[in-house]
Amino acid sequence: MLKNINPLLNPDLLQVLAAMGHGDSLVLCDANFPAESVARKTSHGSLLRMDGANVVEAANAVLSLMPLDTFIDDAAQCMEVVGEPDAQPIVKQEVQAVINQYEGNGFILRPVERFAFYEKASASYAVLATSERRFYGCFIFTKGVIPPEV
Amino acid sequence: MLKNINPLLNPDLLQVLAAMGHGDSLVLCDANFPAESVARKTSHGSLLRMDGANVVEAANAVLSLMPLDTFIDDAAQCMEVVGEPDAQPIVKQEVQAVINQYEGNGFILRPVERFAFYEKASASYAVLATSERRFYGCFIFTKGVIPPEV
Repeated sequence: MLKNINPLLNPDLLQVLAAMGHGDSLVLCDANFPAESVARKTSHGSLLRMDGANVVEAANAVLSLMPLDTFIDDAAQCMEVVGEPDAQPIVKQEVQAVINQYEGNGFILRPVERFAFYEKASASYAVLATSERRFYGCFIFTKGVIPPEV
Repeated sequence: MLKNINPLLNPDLLQVLAAMGHGDSLVLCDANFPAESVARKTSHGSLLRMDGANVVEAANAVLSLMPLDTFIDDAAQCMEVVGEPDAQPIVKQEVQAVINQYEGNGFILRPVERFAFYEKASASYAVLATSERRFYGCFIFTKGVIPPEV
């Protein structure tokens, strides 16, 4: 336990969040995502876990510390529903609300086709597996910058 | 860089601070302390570094997240000046001020004789080496608890 740090942010996840720099991305995934196999292709190389939390709680914990990237228009991405590209799963709506809470309304979750999502996830810095059971509870956040305090 | 996290808290140090539990202790030491050899005896087993910062800046960064232990009366310890047990080095006074700022006035730095300090340091969770050049810039902080929010 640390002061003002969400206790879902376990030691290894904190290490990764701090190690990530501008443009590095983090995958937050549901319980069905091929998390282990994808994580081994990432920069970090091993899977991070947040067992017992759903992906909305995980997003809330991560975004309490990590800024999103304002340099691009797809700093927040989600997996597109297969065969229903216009679907808006509840889990996506809930994560969007968390994003808006921390980062304002400028970051719209951009759907990414399933296999393209796997490719992007494999090229990310790390993967965080949650206990989310709802389908399509998979997201990619790209880290932004924090300016000097002056 | 992370929101509201002192940037001196590098990824590995953040990992250690979060991994420590109640009663675990962290050594903050100056540039002359046998940091590597002592660190290898600790629970963490490898040395953490905060190069470029003095021990007062390091204490400020650490105590921004880590609570001190209210269960004991020596949660904050310093190395006693050899041959001058009543000496009050400026560096000690400055670290005491940082402690008071974060934890109130209830934590008095307790001097520990040099070789006893090495023993306590070896039994700690981890050692953080700083670039502090002033003599006796060596401290041990014991981690406390954070209560439930409700």
